[in-house]
Amino acid sequence: MKSSNWLQKENLRAIIFNDDTPAGRRFDVVLTICIAISLVILFVESNPSLPYWLKITLGVLEVVLTLLFTVEYIARLYCAESRRRYALGGWGIIDLMAVLPPYLTFFLPGARYLLILRSIRFIRIFRIFRLFSFLNEGEMLLKALGRSLHKIAVYFLFVFVLVICLGTLMFIIESGQPDSAFRDIGTSIYWAITTLSTVGYGDITPTTHLGRLLSSFIMLLGYTLIAVPGGIVTASFIDTTSDPVRNGRCPRCDAKVRKGDKFCSQCGEKL
Amino acid sequence: MKSSNWLQKENLRAIIFNDDTPAGRRFDVVLTICIAISLVILFVESNPSLPYWLKITLGVLEVVLTLLFTVEYIARLYCAESRRRYALGGWGIIDLMAVLPPYLTFFLPGARYLLILRSIRFIRIFRIFRLFSFLNEGEMLLKALGRSLHKIAVYFLFVFVLVICLGTLMFIIESGQPDSAFRDIGTSIYWAITTLSTVGYGDITPTTHLGRLLSSFIMLLGYTLIAVPGGIVTASFIDTTSDPVRNGRCPRCDAKVRKGDKFCSQCGEKL
Amino acid sequence: MKSSNWLQKENLRAIIFNDDTPAGRRFDVVLTICIAISLVILFVESNPSLPYWLKITLGVLEVVLTLLFTVEYIARLYCAESRRRYALGGWGIIDLMAVLPPYLTFFLPGARYLLILRSIRFIRIFRIFRLFSFLNEGEMLLKALGRSLHKIAVYFLFVFVLVICLGTLMFIIESGQPDSAFRDIGTSIYWAITTLSTVGYGDITPTTHLGRLLSSFIMLLGYTLIAVPGGIVTASFIDTTSDPVRNGRCPRCDAKVRKGDKFCSQCGEKL
Amino acid sequence: MKSSNWLQKENLRAIIFNDDTPAGRRFDVVLTICIAISLVILFVESNPSLPYWLKITLGVLEVVLTLLFTVEYIARLYCAESRRRYALGGWGIIDLMAVLPPYLTFFLPGARYLLILRSIRFIRIFRIFRLFSFLNEGEMLLKALGRSLHKIAVYFLFVFVLVICLGTLMFIIESGQPDSAFRDIGTSIYWAITTLSTVGYGDITPTTHLGRLLSSFIMLLGYTLIAVPGGIVTASFIDTTSDPVRNGRCPRCDAKVRKGDKFCSQCGEKL
Repeated sequence: MKSSNWLQKENLRAIIFNDDTPAGRRFDVVLTICIAISLVILFVESNPSLPYWLKITLGVLEVVLTLLFTVEYIARLYCAESRRRYALGGWGIIDLMAVLPPYLTFFLPGARYLLILRSIRFIRIFRIFRLFSFLNEGEMLLKALGRSLHKIAVYFLFVFVLVICLGTLMFIIESGQPDSAFRDIGTSIYWAITTLSTVGYGDITPTTHLGRLLSSFIMLLGYTLIAVPGGIVTASFIDTTSDPVRNGRCPRCDAKVRKGDKFCSQCGEKL
Repeated sequence: MKSSNWLQKENLRAIIFNDDTPAGRRFDVVLTICIAISLVILFVESNPSLPYWLKITLGVLEVVLTLLFTVEYIARLYCAESRRRYALGGWGIIDLMAVLPPYLTFFLPGARYLLILRSIRFIRIFRIFRLFSFLNEGEMLLKALGRSLHKIAVYFLFVFVLVICLGTLMFIIESGQPDSAFRDIGTSIYWAITTLSTVGYGDITPTTHLGRLLSSFIMLLGYTLIAVPGGIVTASFIDTTSDPVRNGRCPRCDAKVRKGDKFCSQCGEKL
Repeated sequence: MKSSNWLQKENLRAIIFNDDTPAGRRFDVVLTICIAISLVILFVESNPSLPYWLKITLGVLEVVLTLLFTVEYIARLYCAESRRRYALGGWGIIDLMAVLPPYLTFFLPGARYLLILRSIRFIRIFRIFRLFSFLNEGEMLLKALGRSLHKIAVYFLFVFVLVICLGTLMFIIESGQPDSAFRDIGTSIYWAITTLSTVGYGDITPTTHLGRLLSSFIMLLGYTLIAVPGGIVTASFIDTTSDPVRNGRCPRCDAKVRKGDKFCSQCGEKL
Repeated sequence: MKSSNWLQKENLRAIIFNDDTPAGRRFDVVLTICIAISLVILFVESNPSLPYWLKITLGVLEVVLTLLFTVEYIARLYCAESRRRYALGGWGIIDLMAVLPPYLTFFLPGARYLLILRSIRFIRIFRIFRLFSFLNEGEMLLKALGRSLHKIAVYFLFVFVLVICLGTLMFIIESGQPDSAFRDIGTSIYWAITTLSTVGYGDITPTTHLGRLLSSFIMLLGYTLIAVPGGIVTASFIDTTSDPVRNGRCPRCDAKVRKGDKFCSQCGEKL
């Protein structure tokens, strides 16, 4: 009896956690479709002008899906090799967050929008198509971005100070106009960010000649500034393909390292 | 009689398929002009407020051009070295799609917009100016893009999950406002994509202080994120000029390869 | 008498054409200021709601400046080493175009906007500050751009066909709506270009769900496409600093060349 | 007595200027928080529709903070190793500008917006977190940008002439329309900059067919032009990691240098 139970657990684990078996892959496909349906329900339900019958149908569908996800979470917990490691690991927490929100709405009405966290589970899609090399690419991207994080952080502090100054300057210039959209400095800084990032909504636009002159200057500045993160990231990507250590540089802080060094003498990075 | 017929076919083929002869080039120039005229007619006709006489004129012109293209297609089919290979090949299908739509409109009224597929035939322009080296460049571009496709796919899945989360967050923040443009989560995700891609139409804009703060954050995020595909593509373009195999890397998956390897041990790419 | 005349001509030439002498530099400074004033006058005069006295003042100022530029052109022509070479050379034609427009307005009323061509003379500014190394940089930029022109041309033909197809698709989707801004296919193609280039005016925006879905797709596409010219130009800039010939490549068509080659065997470029 | 006084000065200096001691770090943290509060007050006060009690509260808070900053400045001046060097150095002037504005408002009402210069003091944040390596990154960024300044300057002169010509062209095309937003050439140039930089507010948009055609061309041009500063900056970043002198090039003007050279023969840069 016990042995058969143990076998069942093994089988279940093969389906839920393993994607090498046909059953495991079918399980992953069904799961991803369920996540997609649950997200579409959330999107459609957010529309306030839905007919009554659709509201009811979607509500029922969501209850069903939530029950399914709950069963899935319990099954995962039940057949995990180490329950503790699964429950406290990254994927376990994401799986839990995909289940909890509907139950939380009994206490917190806004909690149901946490359902959006189910979208993170989409990353499982790589498992379906066995695209592990894709995950390697993603890891390489993250590593390259991580290495250029220092430079990007310095850059954003500079942009931060810049938009505060430019926003205030525009507020001084434009706020005198009747019906000016530059109502306060906060709004002006929001405008400065909109302009520097070349988004340019157009909900707030300068109307005075001086304001437009300054705007033109800010836009041309943004033209150059937008190139800087690009340059940082690109230089980092190119460095990723070539081996920085072989070139006598620390891959993290770019300081020079000698041939026999095992750690960077500047930042302690293992070489 | 038969020999002369065979000769005629040869001559026709030299004009239609060959662009080395003066007659062949003249034929290609006339054809490209006809395609351009046919597209301009399609564009002008889409305007609902045309005077009656212009509508008639354009209609007649289109019938004439359609007949010309039909004759051209039949001629191509007639004098192709292998009719089957032409009819089922890429260019044959494109040529057919340039002819069919007006006839299809007897059955499907919307079919005439398929005429737009005629624009693909513009690629013939390279043949007119004998710009074959241009096509090589295009192939190199596509190869470089293809090689970075894996990275870009991972990146877009990440952006996809991100805009879903950011869009929902903005919906929660902004939808409480009276007359808010953030009507449902779908609209909010559309807004998030508009903002992250720095397009910024301005048809949907945040009006609350918190919404503007989050928007500013999203814009600065987009500032950095927009740099990532650039970095990927640029790194790939630079790799294209240098020979990756010589650098001991697989040109497709970037894994290390040994000197004598004929295939990549990771992805099977021929080196 | 004749000798003194010859001396005068020499002196005049030293002032007008030479920027090594203090007098020559002062002349260039005054000239650049005059050009700037003349442009500002043109900008201010374009405003239809000017007071009468300002209109008169600006008109008089422009007549004075035009006379000055006329005298300058005649002086340049008079003291040029080779009158013919100056008159038919690049700078001579630009100088002439800075003088002619006000006289042309007697025959063509719209001709005065040709005055804008005076802005090209601003490039003289490099002579004032003796920034010849800047011009070298500019030449290097142009060379790098020129080398990537083939790739960019292929790319734009692709973008051209793409926006025609996407614009027509959006027209089919959106034109059914009442008061749709997508009035005809031309307008829709204009919208597609606005979106793909991430400019995003917002004068034309999709309102249907399907239209917004397609727009989101176009924006994310633009996200990647905008990276391509960047990649091409950057790769070209990096190649400029390294010597392509030494790397066994033709600097123009990137074909492989052997060590002793004096011309590229593919495009005839001198190495 | 005097010795103890000297000791006090030493102690004060250790707190204010040194960030190695716990007291020094705590001082820096408190200072940064005070600066942040003072900026938030400035932003909130700019809103004209504040309730009376909030206005008073903020006013009092600002007076308190200004007194604190005044005391801090005097203390810094008092315990600086060399008072003169501190008062006339970069940080001394920034510290003074953080104190002066409220006092200047007695004479100049607009002077209080100079308070925004306090935001520059945020750079102290690096001292709190001991992120000196960040400052190194910043310096490297600036050096790379500085080296590409020549190229960017040439580029912007070109863009400057271009937007003047394009703006005037659009003014000629669009100004004939009734209620055209292209009121004068200045506005049209502002529009051209908005479009070329891909900001695209949408407050000024073309309405004629010809205007939209030219706009499409300008957008596609901006598509390529926006890539140029990116290429310049990226190429410069990549050069920073490799050693230009070793490659036989001057790091500043990129001219060729011989192996033994100690200064660049073209620009005098020390190698």
